Amino acid sequence: MNSTLPAVVSARISPRGGLDVLSRMEVQRLRDASTGGLHDLLRRCALAVLTSGSESDDPRAAMERYPNFDIQVMQQDRGIKLELTDAPATAFVDGRIIHGVAELLFSVVRDIAYVATDIEGSDAFDLDSSDGITAAVFEILRNARVLRPDVEPNMVVCWGGHSIKRHEYEYTKLVGYQLGLRGLDICTGCGPGAMKGPMKGATIAHAKQRRYHNFYIGITEPGIIAAESPNPIVNHLVIMPDIEKRLEAFVRLGHGIIVFPGGVGTAEEILYLLGILLHPKNRDLPFPMILTGPRESAAYFEQIDQFLQLTLGEAAAQRYRIIVDDPAEVARQMARGMEQVRLHRLENKDAFFFNWSLQVPLSFQQPFVPSHENMARLHLHRDVPVHDLAADLRRAFSGIVAGNVKEEGMRAIEQHGPFRIDGEPAIMRALDALLRAFVAQGRMKMSGDYHPCYQVVASP
Amino acid sequence: MNSTLPAVVSARISPRGGLDVLSRMEVQRLRDASTGGLHDLLRRCALAVLTSGSESDDPRAAMERYPNFDIQVMQQDRGIKLELTDAPATAFVDGRIIHGVAELLFSVVRDIAYVATDIEGSDAFDLDSSDGITAAVFEILRNARVLRPDVEPNMVVCWGGHSIKRHEYEYTKLVGYQLGLRGLDICTGCGPGAMKGPMKGATIAHAKQRRYHNFYIGITEPGIIAAESPNPIVNHLVIMPDIEKRLEAFVRLGHGIIVFPGGVGTAEEILYLLGILLHPKNRDLPFPMILTGPRESAAYFEQIDQFLQLTLGEAAAQRYRIIVDDPAEVARQMARGMEQVRLHRLENKDAFFFNWSLQVPLSFQQPFVPSHENMARLHLHRDVPVHDLAADLRRAFSGIVAGNVKEEGMRAIEQHGPFRIDGEPAIMRALDALLRAFVAQGRMKMSGDYHPCYQVVASP
Amino acid sequence: MNSTLPAVVSARISPRGGLDVLSRMEVQRLRDASTGGLHDLLRRCALAVLTSGSESDDPRAAMERYPNFDIQVMQQDRGIKLELTDAPATAFVDGRIIHGVAELLFSVVRDIAYVATDIEGSDAFDLDSSDGITAAVFEILRNARVLRPDVEPNMVVCWGGHSIKRHEYEYTKLVGYQLGLRGLDICTGCGPGAMKGPMKGATIAHAKQRRYHNFYIGITEPGIIAAESPNPIVNHLVIMPDIEKRLEAFVRLGHGIIVFPGGVGTAEEILYLLGILLHPKNRDLPFPMILTGPRESAAYFEQIDQFLQLTLGEAAAQRYRIIVDDPAEVARQMARGMEQVRLHRLENKDAFFFNWSLQVPLSFQQPFVPSHENMARLHLHRDVPVHDLAADLRRAFSGIVAGNVKEEGMRAIEQHGPFRIDGEPAIMRALDALLRAFVAQGRMKMSGDYHPCYQVVASP
Amino acid sequence: MNSTLPAVVSARISPRGGLDVLSRMEVQRLRDASTGGLHDLLRRCALAVLTSGSESDDPRAAMERYPNFDIQVMQQDRGIKLELTDAPATAFVDGRIIHGVAELLFSVVRDIAYVATDIEGSDAFDLDSSDGITAAVFEILRNARVLRPDVEPNMVVCWGGHSIKRHEYEYTKLVGYQLGLRGLDICTGCGPGAMKGPMKGATIAHAKQRRYHNFYIGITEPGIIAAESPNPIVNHLVIMPDIEKRLEAFVRLGHGIIVFPGGVGTAEEILYLLGILLHPKNRDLPFPMILTGPRESAAYFEQIDQFLQLTLGEAAAQRYRIIVDDPAEVARQMARGMEQVRLHRLENKDAFFFNWSLQVPLSFQQPFVPSHENMARLHLHRDVPVHDLAADLRRAFSGIVAGNVKEEGMRAIEQHGPFRIDGEPAIMRALDALLRAFVAQGRMKMSGDYHPCYQVVASP
Repeated sequence: MNSTLPAVVSARISPRGGLDVLSRMEVQRLRDASTGGLHDLLRRCALAVLTSGSESDDPRAAMERYPNFDIQVMQQDRGIKLELTDAPATAFVDGRIIHGVAELLFSVVRDIAYVATDIEGSDAFDLDSSDGITAAVFEILRNARVLRPDVEPNMVVCWGGHSIKRHEYEYTKLVGYQLGLRGLDICTGCGPGAMKGPMKGATIAHAKQRRYHNFYIGITEPGIIAAESPNPIVNHLVIMPDIEKRLEAFVRLGHGIIVFPGGVGTAEEILYLLGILLHPKNRDLPFPMILTGPRESAAYFEQIDQFLQLTLGEAAAQRYRIIVDDPAEVARQMARGMEQVRLHRLENKDAFFFNWSLQVPLSFQQPFVPSHENMARLHLHRDVPVHDLAADLRRAFSGIVAGNVKEEGMRAIEQHGPFRIDGEPAIMRALDALLRAFVAQGRMKMSGDYHPCYQVVASP
Repeated sequence: MNSTLPAVVSARISPRGGLDVLSRMEVQRLRDASTGGLHDLLRRCALAVLTSGSESDDPRAAMERYPNFDIQVMQQDRGIKLELTDAPATAFVDGRIIHGVAELLFSVVRDIAYVATDIEGSDAFDLDSSDGITAAVFEILRNARVLRPDVEPNMVVCWGGHSIKRHEYEYTKLVGYQLGLRGLDICTGCGPGAMKGPMKGATIAHAKQRRYHNFYIGITEPGIIAAESPNPIVNHLVIMPDIEKRLEAFVRLGHGIIVFPGGVGTAEEILYLLGILLHPKNRDLPFPMILTGPRESAAYFEQIDQFLQLTLGEAAAQRYRIIVDDPAEVARQMARGMEQVRLHRLENKDAFFFNWSLQVPLSFQQPFVPSHENMARLHLHRDVPVHDLAADLRRAFSGIVAGNVKEEGMRAIEQHGPFRIDGEPAIMRALDALLRAFVAQGRMKMSGDYHPCYQVVASP
Repeated sequence: MNSTLPAVVSARISPRGGLDVLSRMEVQRLRDASTGGLHDLLRRCALAVLTSGSESDDPRAAMERYPNFDIQVMQQDRGIKLELTDAPATAFVDGRIIHGVAELLFSVVRDIAYVATDIEGSDAFDLDSSDGITAAVFEILRNARVLRPDVEPNMVVCWGGHSIKRHEYEYTKLVGYQLGLRGLDICTGCGPGAMKGPMKGATIAHAKQRRYHNFYIGITEPGIIAAESPNPIVNHLVIMPDIEKRLEAFVRLGHGIIVFPGGVGTAEEILYLLGILLHPKNRDLPFPMILTGPRESAAYFEQIDQFLQLTLGEAAAQRYRIIVDDPAEVARQMARGMEQVRLHRLENKDAFFFNWSLQVPLSFQQPFVPSHENMARLHLHRDVPVHDLAADLRRAFSGIVAGNVKEEGMRAIEQHGPFRIDGEPAIMRALDALLRAFVAQGRMKMSGDYHPCYQVVASP
Repeated sequence: MNSTLPAVVSARISPRGGLDVLSRMEVQRLRDASTGGLHDLLRRCALAVLTSGSESDDPRAAMERYPNFDIQVMQQDRGIKLELTDAPATAFVDGRIIHGVAELLFSVVRDIAYVATDIEGSDAFDLDSSDGITAAVFEILRNARVLRPDVEPNMVVCWGGHSIKRHEYEYTKLVGYQLGLRGLDICTGCGPGAMKGPMKGATIAHAKQRRYHNFYIGITEPGIIAAESPNPIVNHLVIMPDIEKRLEAFVRLGHGIIVFPGGVGTAEEILYLLGILLHPKNRDLPFPMILTGPRESAAYFEQIDQFLQLTLGEAAAQRYRIIVDDPAEVARQMARGMEQVRLHRLENKDAFFFNWSLQVPLSFQQPFVPSHENMARLHLHRDVPVHDLAADLRRAFSGIVAGNVKEEGMRAIEQHGPFRIDGEPAIMRALDALLRAFVAQGRMKMSGDYHPCYQVVASP
């Protein structure tokens, strides 16, 4: 070890929130999980939480800085404790862990164990069927206690890049502030950038409005948490098992969605949402969707808009509204949209806390493994229903995200070179232009030069 | 219908407490359960709750008074509602259901459905093993939200007759008052008499001590709820699937037990607890047990004491203390016992909310069906380990309870005549004397003449 | 000391509720007050609170049972403590004072000190003017924190005898129960009998309705507290400086009034209220007033009714309603009355928490000293406005209450013989009949033979 | 009106917090106050609150931007409302006032009225005596509900400039963050800069520690509020009647004080505190005082340190500690100091919520009017006790603050030219150097060139 390694602390942590009334079997299972096959997963996610607020998006960086970090679930008859070894000192104050960090840490243990035993390790859910996957998403969210009865629609999901420019970040804070002034809660992917700004702005606004029981929900998944470690404001963290369930959690939980400037991850999210909203069964479902950014981002949204109109057509454009440089108007529109959602749910006797009525086709639910083979097999042509095209475009962007910032994806690119994406020439040209713009605008990675992990090819 | 039938109300009730964040599958299952095989069970238990505070212990009386009463679980996308038809008007105020009654009603639905789907309808629990049964008991209690983390041992279980004399009832109130003054919570079988008095006394004491978040837990089971409908003070109701799991719930949840005068049901409870405490593995476990009553009940407890010493020996007598006519002393001793329990749990790192360390042998856990055959087969001789004899004595009393006040048992007696109980002459003589005393003291039934449902026979 | 004296405890008590943020001057004043002229007053009132729940109405009995009881306010820089010497052991549990008793004890200190320094010892209030007296009543109630903003009219004042028959007491509990089921709070004179029953019934109903933040207000005054010591359920105690301010507190704070059977004190209260309501300026003010009792009390209310119609006329009878033996109907009527009060206050932009609009003439506000001279001087003839006659009738009854149960009054009677009350023959005959009925029905004193403290004389 | 005036809103506001249970007299007095002599004061303070978070320190700027702004207290029988005319639109969201702003607005009305009627308009306080002034300070703070019983010492007062450099501001946030992590509350002068940063940092830390009931107290006075309008995080605002009572409020309420870089106002505060702590009677009183800033401010604190050592001597230097660029160490030292304060208060039975033991000499309490005559009369020589010299040095700085940013002072300077300050040559040289450094470092005003409002003259 060299002397520049950061300070570390070892400590034993008591449960908070959930995990405080466990059966002996559960204690056993948690301990087993933490030493068995899930140990590496637990260790990675826990470290992400402990470096919460860090500025790096390199998933391997934390591991390199804290090479001796370890976490064990200790069995005790009265319950469990977490034993942390050589953990980042920044998560502690005078030797005692910060309460919020401890809470998030137990969220990690809770979700990893729950998914392993009650979802994947149980026969209760048919994970090959659309209903089964939706049921699993519901159970994970309920187990994480983020489904609240008797609360009117007020959850705004904010999407956008983790690596955005300063003025874009400041803009996300202003929008969050205006949302917060109107009593809206925030849900994001829980990393930095556009995932942190809205929460920060809302925090100040909630304080000014003397609103105390706020929900700042962060929804992540094991593949991305290391690159986008939870920002410090998140007070409810959920770790979904994969990217597709994470996306479904966003659209089932959120009552409206705001998209800030971002890169390929944001594009993936836009295509996911539009693909679903374009499904015929969702035609009459109100779902406020606003694309917004500061004045300087106007061109960016024009580009996205053109790409969406070209690929998904005019109908897609009907589902979102672009608002440039007007945070208060964004919040007003969103508040109005919430009211429509509320009325629609009441009329249809649907729950406020979970969007049961939304039809999510299986093609948007099945986990997509971004291997070179799968990437090459995507069908990017306009000869299929528009939501099917959206599904494959979503997968294309998903693969690029993996190649950029996910450990497995990065390894695959190192071994086999860039992904090959081909499709209809018009789409390919548009895609290529969009991706080049992302590179040019520095939206691919937080630091360092960017070497594309893909290659766009037009096939006749 | 004749005109003397009591007033009824039909209404639709919204969920309270739990059951407010349900999955579509759960809503479906609840509706199915309420229309399928569980409908009769649900109807009987719901009616017991709706006649809460009634003075009758005849399980068929309520059904005869409210012959058209019905309950249906209504499916709605947003959740469920309960549809009540011709329900007792006493549960309503100006057409609106009393909040506490609605809460108990949803407890009934919650527990019946949970047991049907997650316990009996699931492979998760091996209900033929001791650990499996204990795990099921734990899950039902946790699901009912009566296991509280971070609360020091303070739960006093009060046992005793539902049909007791006025001065005995007044005495249970005084004891409850003294317990309440010392910040102790109360758990009972949730019917009238000794199950209501302590809660009533504690309520006044808690108010005088300005203690606001009190637990008045009632634990019942489908076979007894109709005869002992929940008294109005119970604010947490749990319906265990059978008498043995109910008894286990008492001893796992309670930190100490007070036994007031009672009849065969109380005798069953005493034998259950002593049988367990006499198990070698429980020898060093602190478990405060106090038998108490007013001055007039002194003879009663002497009788019980003699019976226990004769059948279970001196060791049994070490586990309980008899206190006559001194409510404050009872409460002081109990508070002291709680402190020992607290220290023991801390030393052994055991949970405060569930007595994991207590060994409950399978013979005390397996449901006993009081058929004439099973009753005849009991082995009431002192040639077996003392906790085995206790187990069979417990079953003997359990059978008599069934013959006295449970629908099924009453029907069996009507068809086949009294149960035949035989065993070692000395035990049989003692048993006979005890039962005669219960009859003479009117402890068998709340009203009407008592016709014994048993026949004691000494076998050489 | 003889051996039959009850157990006592000496202890030092820390402040609760108010009195926890005091200035050095206030601490000084409290200490001075407790040692100076107010010490005897403080000692008497404190003892009444410490014997809370006692069954005697003899104001000297407590002093005789606890002859060495003393209370001192201890000065400490951090605030004050109360030093109790030889206090009734019944107010303690294992050496620690019952929380609620400690709260009431500090209420006593708070009100006695506040009245002495801020009301009587200040120039801020013109206690010779009607507005000044009302302002003082407001300030004492606000200082006692019983004026709540943002709470809809729901405060029912219950009047009636402290010495009532068992079935009457049971009836007051049933009425309290029905009021509580409808979410109404209770305010009484805080002694036993009709002042305790409604609170007890409401407590059970509030628990069943899961209503947790209930107000059980007791309003008393130094002259009566010893005879009618606060019942244990009172959670807000106010000690008004005299009987007239106590009566004004009832009618300013309460939104409706229920009168149960009682004796001369109750008659005084009825005349006070009707006298005010008959004032021309109060003609259009809604103020629900219900006289009620069990079937056996029907004759009693007929008698009262006749007396009121004879003396105050038909207009008086319009302001109250007599309901016999129907607790639910009483509560329903009261709830309906509350709604009218609510609407009236909204229309007139009047506060919910204090009945500013009610006109209380000075003749009802000025303290009446029931000397033989003053009693003889009452003008009980129908040649004056009806509310003036009511005022003097009120004073007549007030004097008899003093002669019956107040220390000073009893002493005066012992020295000078019975009061002489004369007036118009018809009124005198009715009054005499009413008083004889009270004596016959045992409504004058809780125990012992009754020797009238008055003599009714008809003057032409 | 020209078109560049900012948007305005007119609205009627309902009371929050206090002011919701008022007597008719109080309503009357508030209305009178708001229309009579206090109207201008009320208008100015209210506008400062409504422009909360503004970046200007020119007290006249707000008035010029909102020339038609007005505020009236409306009388209604049920209480009061505030009628706002042409108020800054930034205080509203979609036409509804921000809750926190409304709270602060009612704090303004509350304090102005309370001081006018209960302090200055009452005989209760001898404002010419030290004890009388302290009593008044206590009453104002208690009336504002910032004195909390049963809370351990944890209130850190942060002083420092409202006009500081970016990196200094960032540093104050980091210190606030570290204080917040340790569960400490913050009290400041409630303007921007060093008065806002610590609250902002603490807000984030409190959120991370899941600490919900935080106190962010702002203490201001009518002369300064316009220049330093309350920052948006303040949740308890107190308006003391003058600068001396404001300073006394800080030292009576705070358990420790941190001084960040600042200008003359900060120097005034340092001299105030040291002057008091150097009083012989305060010698043994623990009072943690830390001067801190980022690395770049090291020179600044050296300068201050030298000035203090020269003028007040070595003993003064014993009372503070300078910590450069180490926020965590500042917080750790402060937390340790709090513990000493706690132990000292316990030992001396002193209140936690108000520092009664601190001796504040009358010379530090009497309002100083910074007229040219009074400024010239200051005695700045080392031939008097050190706390007397501190008192006059404090006054000198106070005068310069007035000349810089207070309306009245600015007007005096405009009319009569700079203040003349003379004294012992050594002191004058040091003072001159210090002031020049403030000018050079831009610590005098937030914007524009600085024209000194003083002239330093050495007198032999």
